[in-house]
Amino acid sequence: MDKKTLTDTHQRIKPFIHRTPVLKSSLLDDMVGAQIHFKCENFQKMGAFKMRGAASAIVALTEAERQKGVVTHSSGNFAQAVALAAKQLKVKAYIVMPENAPRVKKEAVKAYGGNIIECESTPEAREKTAERIENETGATFLHPSNQDEVILGNSTAAIELLQERPDLDIILAPVGGGGLIAGTALAAHYFGNDCKVIGGEPFEVDDAYRSLKSGKIERNTTTNTVADGLRTYLGDRNFPIIQKYVDRIIRVDEKEIIRAMKLIWERMKIIIEPSCAVPFAAVLREKERFKSKKIGIILSGGNVDVTKLPF
Amino acid sequence: MDKKTLTDTHQRIKPFIHRTPVLKSSLLDDMVGAQIHFKCENFQKMGAFKMRGAASAIVALTEAERQKGVVTHSSGNFAQAVALAAKQLKVKAYIVMPENAPRVKKEAVKAYGGNIIECESTPEAREKTAERIENETGATFLHPSNQDEVILGNSTAAIELLQERPDLDIILAPVGGGGLIAGTALAAHYFGNDCKVIGGEPFEVDDAYRSLKSGKIERNTTTNTVADGLRTYLGDRNFPIIQKYVDRIIRVDEKEIIRAMKLIWERMKIIIEPSCAVPFAAVLREKERFKSKKIGIILSGGNVDVTKLPF
Repeated sequence: MDKKTLTDTHQRIKPFIHRTPVLKSSLLDDMVGAQIHFKCENFQKMGAFKMRGAASAIVALTEAERQKGVVTHSSGNFAQAVALAAKQLKVKAYIVMPENAPRVKKEAVKAYGGNIIECESTPEAREKTAERIENETGATFLHPSNQDEVILGNSTAAIELLQERPDLDIILAPVGGGGLIAGTALAAHYFGNDCKVIGGEPFEVDDAYRSLKSGKIERNTTTNTVADGLRTYLGDRNFPIIQKYVDRIIRVDEKEIIRAMKLIWERMKIIIEPSCAVPFAAVLREKERFKSKKIGIILSGGNVDVTKLPF
Repeated sequence: MDKKTLTDTHQRIKPFIHRTPVLKSSLLDDMVGAQIHFKCENFQKMGAFKMRGAASAIVALTEAERQKGVVTHSSGNFAQAVALAAKQLKVKAYIVMPENAPRVKKEAVKAYGGNIIECESTPEAREKTAERIENETGATFLHPSNQDEVILGNSTAAIELLQERPDLDIILAPVGGGGLIAGTALAAHYFGNDCKVIGGEPFEVDDAYRSLKSGKIERNTTTNTVADGLRTYLGDRNFPIIQKYVDRIIRVDEKEIIRAMKLIWERMKIIIEPSCAVPFAAVLREKERFKSKKIGIILSGGNVDVTKLPF
């Protein structure tokens, strides 16, 4: 995955994604004593950065593969992204979703024309069900985070951010399956000017933090976090990139996530999902580290059930 | 209030306001079968268009008047707007607020440096207290909606919208005290290309609708609407402008307001207050009227208690 591959991916997916705005809040800047530039992927098509990875993966398929369709398992945003990207590219999409996934997310997948297959809410159940569909239909499996094309697609959010703000000292992104932070790290490496990448992760699902310590992929023992998009674990494609290019991971507790989310809602008047608030919570937790810096934060998505808020 | 006065006002207040973005949603466009351009005053300083009118009124003061300060009575957005605009212009602001006003609103006014004077929670007590401060201090009274400088300031939201989209067929705004719709109507008259202005108003507080019918300023008998910013009534400065330049007022019920608000939250990922959803509710109610048109909607503000939502 060299610089040219990233640039080419960005060119190929441009017709299928929005170039999202970069917003600032002087009040939040004052709170931290830094300049924070928020890359608003909550305004992305279907409401999350996942659209970039899904479009990238489907655009890369051969004509024969496109005719058999695609299959994925996802707790929400990647499901919608695959459904919408597949629809735009006239490809059939099979979406394996946990039965307890948020209502709005299931409805959105249906609205985008995806075929939902429900399963139990464990990583194992999701994987098995997707495998069965793959065998039955010949559809190509798309992984939400551990696939080169997806990581390449994800990198384009930070590429756009760095095009607008080439002088950023640090970019932060949340760490769930590792696909966004890996893509962000590649973009910062190739397009940044000595720009560090820092991940934000809930204490409750700190597999990535522990993986970086131990040098091998660790699993979560609980999924007890409000940041429902971050309950997954790293994979063999993105972990080496994270090891090589991510400066550190900052962990935050549940109260900090909810406080950061509420602050962004109230002060910026934009809707972000809990997972999306984790990097800003990390900045608030370790303010001294970020003092006077030029910071970019990838606001990863805004798909939240507004009738069930954590505050 | 001629074209030059509007242009001059815009120039004078520019240092004190944000030029807010204009956003679109292809999904909401498809729902209506029209092109809708949302002017996002929820992203304005202090979170509402009121900042424009407050800045305009304070900028217009003489040096002698500025030294004596300004006074207003409001428990809502205008209180915050006057406090912040006065702070920016180094003018003292006296804000009369009912003693039972929500703590968060008082805190916001204090945070912007306003001096709060508490009074009993009746319109009479507010007016009397403001009058007393006026007499004691020589401060200039600012009215939230029925004052030429405030109307001129409010007009600048639509001026900016028309600078970006000069081809709009219709602009909609909510109708409360009448200051925003009057300013919007002036802007459309002078800067639009045969651009109509339509107001949105809740059935529960339809004083403006009835005033246009009867030809004189009518009062509301109840204040039973979720759109808490629209419970006030028209005044002698804005009513003649509304009579002359506003095409019509469309009334909507409470369910329609809440549905429109939720749609904008979920689909556009932005936070708007209930009053702000009224014009979009009007478009949804009378879709046929708006079919295939180029529409502008002033999203008036985003100051809502996110822990107390109507859905």
